[in-house]
Amino acid sequence: MPDETNSAPSTPAAPSTPAAPSKFSAAPTPTPVTVLGLGAMGQALAGAFLAAGHPTTIWNRSAGKGDDLVARGATRAASAADAVRAGEVVVVCVVDYDASQAVLEPLAADLSGRVLVNVTSDSPERAREAAKWAAGHGIAYLDGAVMIPTVMVGTPEALLFYSGDEAAYKKHEALLRSLGGQSAYVGADHGLAAVYDLSMLDFFWTSMAGLVHGYALAAKDGVPASALAPFLQSHFSLIALLIGETATEVDAGAYPGEQANLAVELEGVEHILHAAERRGLDVSVLRGVRDVAKRAVDLGHGGDSWTATVEGVRNPRA
Amino acid sequence: MPDETNSAPSTPAAPSTPAAPSKFSAAPTPTPVTVLGLGAMGQALAGAFLAAGHPTTIWNRSAGKGDDLVARGATRAASAADAVRAGEVVVVCVVDYDASQAVLEPLAADLSGRVLVNVTSDSPERAREAAKWAAGHGIAYLDGAVMIPTVMVGTPEALLFYSGDEAAYKKHEALLRSLGGQSAYVGADHGLAAVYDLSMLDFFWTSMAGLVHGYALAAKDGVPASALAPFLQSHFSLIALLIGETATEVDAGAYPGEQANLAVELEGVEHILHAAERRGLDVSVLRGVRDVAKRAVDLGHGGDSWTATVEGVRNPRA
Repeated sequence: MPDETNSAPSTPAAPSTPAAPSKFSAAPTPTPVTVLGLGAMGQALAGAFLAAGHPTTIWNRSAGKGDDLVARGATRAASAADAVRAGEVVVVCVVDYDASQAVLEPLAADLSGRVLVNVTSDSPERAREAAKWAAGHGIAYLDGAVMIPTVMVGTPEALLFYSGDEAAYKKHEALLRSLGGQSAYVGADHGLAAVYDLSMLDFFWTSMAGLVHGYALAAKDGVPASALAPFLQSHFSLIALLIGETATEVDAGAYPGEQANLAVELEGVEHILHAAERRGLDVSVLRGVRDVAKRAVDLGHGGDSWTATVEGVRNPRA
Repeated sequence: MPDETNSAPSTPAAPSTPAAPSKFSAAPTPTPVTVLGLGAMGQALAGAFLAAGHPTTIWNRSAGKGDDLVARGATRAASAADAVRAGEVVVVCVVDYDASQAVLEPLAADLSGRVLVNVTSDSPERAREAAKWAAGHGIAYLDGAVMIPTVMVGTPEALLFYSGDEAAYKKHEALLRSLGGQSAYVGADHGLAAVYDLSMLDFFWTSMAGLVHGYALAAKDGVPASALAPFLQSHFSLIALLIGETATEVDAGAYPGEQANLAVELEGVEHILHAAERRGLDVSVLRGVRDVAKRAVDLGHGGDSWTATVEGVRNPRA
């Protein structure tokens, strides 16, 4: 019985494409997908679609890219219009929205009735403009943000955000999930993927600037970064904890100071700033941190927690 | 048999001091210890010594503090000199080094021959000055930095740095470890505890400023911080990884750009900066991040990794 059940539908279900099977999960229903733009990220996206068993068509404005993808089973289209017509879902990944609109506008008629997923990095405003353009041409539109480096594309840990047409996301969730196991749909406003992207990278790059600055400060007194790193790593769980606590306080608009308070913490920041200044280091980031905290203290939040600096962020110096 | 074994040594091993036994480990040899300064942190330190079974004498410049500690077995000294004479190790924890020197200078003769541990927060320079003063009076001197909030004092996870007289640290390591299981001696230069402290807090406060700013940015487009927090937490392992990688690159003075490069990352920072600016938020921290990265690119590091921003930090704008 089991054999019979398995063998009965085997002929139609057998993969008829030469694409490699997924490394990470059972292949979802194969969906013809097109990738426009073969920079490092576009190539990684196309590679992940191929690995998940989707018939993948590729195109790049300038020639000479994607040989490796063709060798792995991708179809190279002769024109962007041919590429679009080959895909049920069209993913575009270029340098910015000026570039993506330059590619997409001549293709409006071909894109009509298909799902367009733009993972080009830009602002929420540009994503919303592009969504209006797509709506005007009957194109189902998702804006996406790839939150991971190219090497992580296609892994179960990879995070991508999508926003916009929810029905299109739901229909193609399995396909899109082949780009990253942590794919998340964050709302109907097409700008939201970019909002999540920018907000997370705001924290990320500011933290990375603080990390490099801390190492530069330690080096001035002969402490190698490698001596500091293990302490930073083990002490790090504190920030992970504070991500949640700070979120609760920001959303509540209430920042009760308990253990420490902003006025005392501001003094600590001044100590760091002066030590760095005395050692001849750039202190523009620390000065910004100090100024925001000081403005929050001046606004009456000296007895509150660090989260109250959000009041300094929301009230820039005139 | 078990009963006999248990009862035989019970008389000599019974605790003869009224101090509570350690919550975390077998009590080390009791060492008479004195705590000068009973702010929130001083009280937490004295409480941890008591909990670990050390005879603890306390003193504060203004009266009315430490009743709870006395109730737990601490001895309140009538004068700072009495307090110092009661301790083999004297810990001072006040607001800054102006305050600690004001307390300590009249006590030089009493401190002579004892171990002084100054955990007051200040600069490496002030710690080195205080060490010179101590050396001139025959006082064994350790500078300390408490890296954790008061509630964590005395726990196995608590991190404290010590630098200065290594023999004094080794002799009293068990006593000092009762303040925190992660106590670390970082070198003979008395300024080093403060260097580790300032460098770690440089990263910490800058990161916390980025976190709050990221939340403020998301809120402007209607995204609550609590919606962003889980993504930040799960994505966070990336920064933990980069703490080590960045350290290796800083120490090597070589920052090979592989996946991404600084020129591309700088564009990403510009996107965040412009989005925040357009939304009326303070961007002084982000502007600092951008300027440092831009200066590193201008210095020829556009193809390197983010770590190359250390060159921008080390070469402030004239």
